Amino acid sequence: MQKIGVFDSGIGGLTVLKDLMRLLPGVDMVYLGDSARLPYGTKSSKTIVRYSLQCARFLVSKGIDMLVVACNTASAHSIAALKDEFHIPVVGVIATGAAAAAATGAATVGVIGTSSTIRSGAYEKALLDLKPGLKVVSAACPLFVPLVEEGWFDDRITEQVAARYLAGMRAQEIEALLLGCTHYPLLKGLLGRVMGDTVTIVDSAYYTALAVKELFGEQPACHKGGDVVYYLTDLNPRFVELGEIFLGHEMTHVYEVDLGV
Amino acid sequence: MQKIGVFDSGIGGLTVLKDLMRLLPGVDMVYLGDSARLPYGTKSSKTIVRYSLQCARFLVSKGIDMLVVACNTASAHSIAALKDEFHIPVVGVIATGAAAAAATGAATVGVIGTSSTIRSGAYEKALLDLKPGLKVVSAACPLFVPLVEEGWFDDRITEQVAARYLAGMRAQEIEALLLGCTHYPLLKGLLGRVMGDTVTIVDSAYYTALAVKELFGEQPACHKGGDVVYYLTDLNPRFVELGEIFLGHEMTHVYEVDLGV
Repeated sequence: MQKIGVFDSGIGGLTVLKDLMRLLPGVDMVYLGDSARLPYGTKSSKTIVRYSLQCARFLVSKGIDMLVVACNTASAHSIAALKDEFHIPVVGVIATGAAAAAATGAATVGVIGTSSTIRSGAYEKALLDLKPGLKVVSAACPLFVPLVEEGWFDDRITEQVAARYLAGMRAQEIEALLLGCTHYPLLKGLLGRVMGDTVTIVDSAYYTALAVKELFGEQPACHKGGDVVYYLTDLNPRFVELGEIFLGHEMTHVYEVDLGV
Repeated sequence: MQKIGVFDSGIGGLTVLKDLMRLLPGVDMVYLGDSARLPYGTKSSKTIVRYSLQCARFLVSKGIDMLVVACNTASAHSIAALKDEFHIPVVGVIATGAAAAAATGAATVGVIGTSSTIRSGAYEKALLDLKPGLKVVSAACPLFVPLVEEGWFDDRITEQVAARYLAGMRAQEIEALLLGCTHYPLLKGLLGRVMGDTVTIVDSAYYTALAVKELFGEQPACHKGGDVVYYLTDLNPRFVELGEIFLGHEMTHVYEVDLGV
């Protein structure tokens, strides 16, 4: 029996976990949300690496065979340090999202994310490493996370915000739109409507889950769901309520954990 | 010559500083924004008290004669601890805002703030202590801070968000609306339009500045502005850019400070 560990600074990474549970239904999973120390995006690279290593050590202590970094900020800063310390496969959202966007064959790719993700240029760099000469248009969409956390996924206010943020991308006729934030899969339908049929929406959470499935290889036919356990460093009822919206089902085994730091 | 120290978890407290500079133009001021550790709202009471004491110690080391806690979360948790440790006057936003709202004579008062401020019930408690029997209607408005930080103060999207958040208050015919967040003074015009002429908008940042002026007593006529120095625990260019929007003028002396913790 194998086990996958997933961490994020909060609950956004649950969109990755949801796809993992769908693609690998018989596999046990452990999710860690470092909700006591979120957001990571405003912290220094050194601090983000330290937090990521602490999260990974906790998950490794739970006996995981593969680590998924379901946080854009941690993926941008910590993958090398994680691969250095742990001798299990480490999969992050940025490399997998960028590879999926490059594979669409789009000549112009739009990237959206939080201010810190866009400022880091991590997706742009990953895309240009894969496909030099690709035209990349980036836009920070700071209101999307609070709008999603408010539960306004399919809402006329959110649609107006999206239309404003994406006006420049529409003018530049992007062919693929890369969702560079684990909250954004919840806006996929709305973003598709705003961008129109000619634009392929690339959900980095889904492609991360797909990359994990490929690493796992063929699984035996499965007649029961795997066990999923959730840990949060701050067990605020609001996180659980929102987490259940992200997952689309109940979070049954949720525990608070002190990383001892 | 006297000096006032002001702290907040970030830049919201600059709305209080702006009013202080207007009401006490000749007085020197020191502002500390603990931007490296924001937001305070999601942290435990013990941690908030510890951070508040560290901020205050720094300001006291700069020779202040009065301390202004321009942060709702810190005001809700730390005033007693601050008064205990420091023997200078300590003024917080909650007591002054609640007193101003009670003084309007409104029978029904609406209170808006961040989720953590509203959940704490601090304004409601302060209002009922002053005026038992007062009807208080509270609403969390989580999107207002990100909308203000996006610079969308006078904007049709923000107006729609406000109309949705405040629909319940309009139905309950509140007579005064207390702005329980230091970001909200930037939305004062818009909120006035949404609520209509019959509702008095009570800006807790302004009343905090007014309370400080009263404590200071009559000042000699002043022919030059006081010196204002700004410290941030994380000197991100975005904070300065936003800070200048909050203040309505340039921040000339801005330094990064390590609180050594």
